[in-house]
Amino acid sequence: MTETPETPEAPRDLETRRKDTLARFEADNDVWVSTADADGVPCLVPLSFLWNGETFLLSTSRTAPTGRNLAANGRVRLAFGATRDVVLVEGTATSLSVTDLAPGEQEAFAAHTGFDPGGFAVPYPYFRIAPVWIQAWREVNEIAGRDLMKAGRWLP
Amino acid sequence: MTETPETPEAPRDLETRRKDTLARFEADNDVWVSTADADGVPCLVPLSFLWNGETFLLSTSRTAPTGRNLAANGRVRLAFGATRDVVLVEGTATSLSVTDLAPGEQEAFAAHTGFDPGGFAVPYPYFRIAPVWIQAWREVNEIAGRDLMKAGRWLP
Repeated sequence: MTETPETPEAPRDLETRRKDTLARFEADNDVWVSTADADGVPCLVPLSFLWNGETFLLSTSRTAPTGRNLAANGRVRLAFGATRDVVLVEGTATSLSVTDLAPGEQEAFAAHTGFDPGGFAVPYPYFRIAPVWIQAWREVNEIAGRDLMKAGRWLP
Repeated sequence: MTETPETPEAPRDLETRRKDTLARFEADNDVWVSTADADGVPCLVPLSFLWNGETFLLSTSRTAPTGRNLAANGRVRLAFGATRDVVLVEGTATSLSVTDLAPGEQEAFAAHTGFDPGGFAVPYPYFRIAPVWIQAWREVNEIAGRDLMKAGRWLP
């Protein structure tokens, strides 16, 4: 993160970036979540998540700024990994209660993240985030070709 | 980022967290920058920065969403490092042109970040970000005591 390699690697092709990106969605447990309220006040926090192959599932208190913002306007940006191995996602969030989850999804979320917000005495809501735009790049030589998904579709 | 250590280290005391945090401000080159527009649309991008001991200096195009948001409302959150070694800053941004910088500051920024936006044919604006609230934590056992600065003052 603090050093630019003296001999940067060759830029990855689209297929490699998509594979690396999906591997990160599968393996990572936490993501930076950026939201905003109606007055334009930004919020940025790390949250645990579960990727099901198409959408991200995360959960936070309905009274926390992120929970309020996601419920109010559903607008979200997610950043994975470090600032020199960027995966950036723009998505739309839908609020779910624990009873809205698919069979086994609550348990899969708890196993992956280490916490079970649907099992709290006052359960946290869940949010399902559908990615709309995905970018991935490492160094400057990967800025070109950084779009992997646009308008909800993986680029061919 | 993807594993919780089985034997987590003991929580760091305030002084250690402050030292670790300041070391990161000095050494890091890039930071996640979260802003929002007046409609509550969040933006999150990685940008290079320079820390001068009191404020962060960064620069981006005045037509990019982050540049527009910073100029419009000055509200910003910065996230340093990984999601399991968090340094989170809330700050207020002021727009500067290259002629507003202190002597040597343009050169120091260019040397630290590797780019010189004040030297562009159409120079990018700079933004000076004064931290107002700083938090630092690694694992759950560091959530308590994570506030290092509140209302612009380092906690004693």
